[in-house]
Amino acid sequence: MPKVVDHHGRRGEIVATACRIIARDGFDATTMAAIAAELGYANGALKPYFATKHDLLVAAFDHICTETTRRAIRAAEGLTGLAAVRAYCHEIIPLDDETIAAARVVIPFWDRALNDPDLARRQRDAVSTWRDDLGAHLRHAHRSGEIAATIDTTRLVELLVTALHGSQITGTLGGSTPSGTRRQLETLLELLGLESRHPRSPRSQRAR
Amino acid sequence: MPKVVDHHGRRGEIVATACRIIARDGFDATTMAAIAAELGYANGALKPYFATKHDLLVAAFDHICTETTRRAIRAAEGLTGLAAVRAYCHEIIPLDDETIAAARVVIPFWDRALNDPDLARRQRDAVSTWRDDLGAHLRHAHRSGEIAATIDTTRLVELLVTALHGSQITGTLGGSTPSGTRRQLETLLELLGLESRHPRSPRSQRAR
Repeated sequence: MPKVVDHHGRRGEIVATACRIIARDGFDATTMAAIAAELGYANGALKPYFATKHDLLVAAFDHICTETTRRAIRAAEGLTGLAAVRAYCHEIIPLDDETIAAARVVIPFWDRALNDPDLARRQRDAVSTWRDDLGAHLRHAHRSGEIAATIDTTRLVELLVTALHGSQITGTLGGSTPSGTRRQLETLLELLGLESRHPRSPRSQRAR
Repeated sequence: MPKVVDHHGRRGEIVATACRIIARDGFDATTMAAIAAELGYANGALKPYFATKHDLLVAAFDHICTETTRRAIRAAEGLTGLAAVRAYCHEIIPLDDETIAAARVVIPFWDRALNDPDLARRQRDAVSTWRDDLGAHLRHAHRSGEIAATIDTTRLVELLVTALHGSQITGTLGGSTPSGTRRQLETLLELLGLESRHPRSPRSQRAR
């Protein structure tokens, strides 16, 4: 009887292991042989799945983004407004081993995406989900009066998404500790509520 | 008579050319031979200055940071508060060929810094100057009432520095156009002034 191989399962196992090794050793130091060895596969066993290390980086990035977005959506379930924004962002910014490892995979990907339109497109696609989800939560916060009425949520979501990217740099290169990274998000969320904490300005009183 | 070589000038020329080629082709595609060729040097002529491509990336990063900080300080000269913050940040965020090229050098550096404590330290050193300068301008804005009294400028500068890093990613990978990147900075600066644009809240009126 021919040996039955679960190709889908094996592919997933390779990608998960690649993510772990890239996050630990860096992309330059990661080799196909090291990933195969870690999995107990023969050297060359990865080739039918991933022809090159580059292909594996792309699959690792896609995996990290899918997982991050899945966790973020789940974390925000049942929450609305800024509480939903906070829970969602806590799954992206580097606060623990899992989110730090994710940042350590996306950073080498970003470098290679600078000169590869296909990779840059994958980056934009991943972020567009965050933008949509965070935009919906911010609009809810706006409607409910949780954030200042003068704030343009379409512009705000762009700033937030950029800050999330930045935290993946500062939070992995020693520019910020996890508690510092968490505090940066709180600083932004507090800025959004500044006016609503002082809602009865002369302007709003006149409008009554 | 022995040939006189201006070693300092030649080193600077090599670094400037390396920055240009890394920004254009990406770090992976950059070779020592290509840089030598672009300069009209013989193959191997870079070796006395930079033993490896890694050493050249470090020198390129240091050069970019020195130049960026020098431009930022000069742009903010004669300005105070948020106007100084804006002028300073406009020399860092990717708004034109020069600032985009700078981001395209620091991103490959960040990737390598993830597993190299010496590189990570250089990154932190470069950013600490920005943090000091921007912190001083934000404190001035705070004292003069340009930004809301409730804002903690020490926390704010961390958020701002992280957003600057993020813009170097989103502004080079198609996540944001230069005008979009500029707008993100304005969005943050507007948030800082929210309360001061509605200064006569019941709370401040009672204090009079």
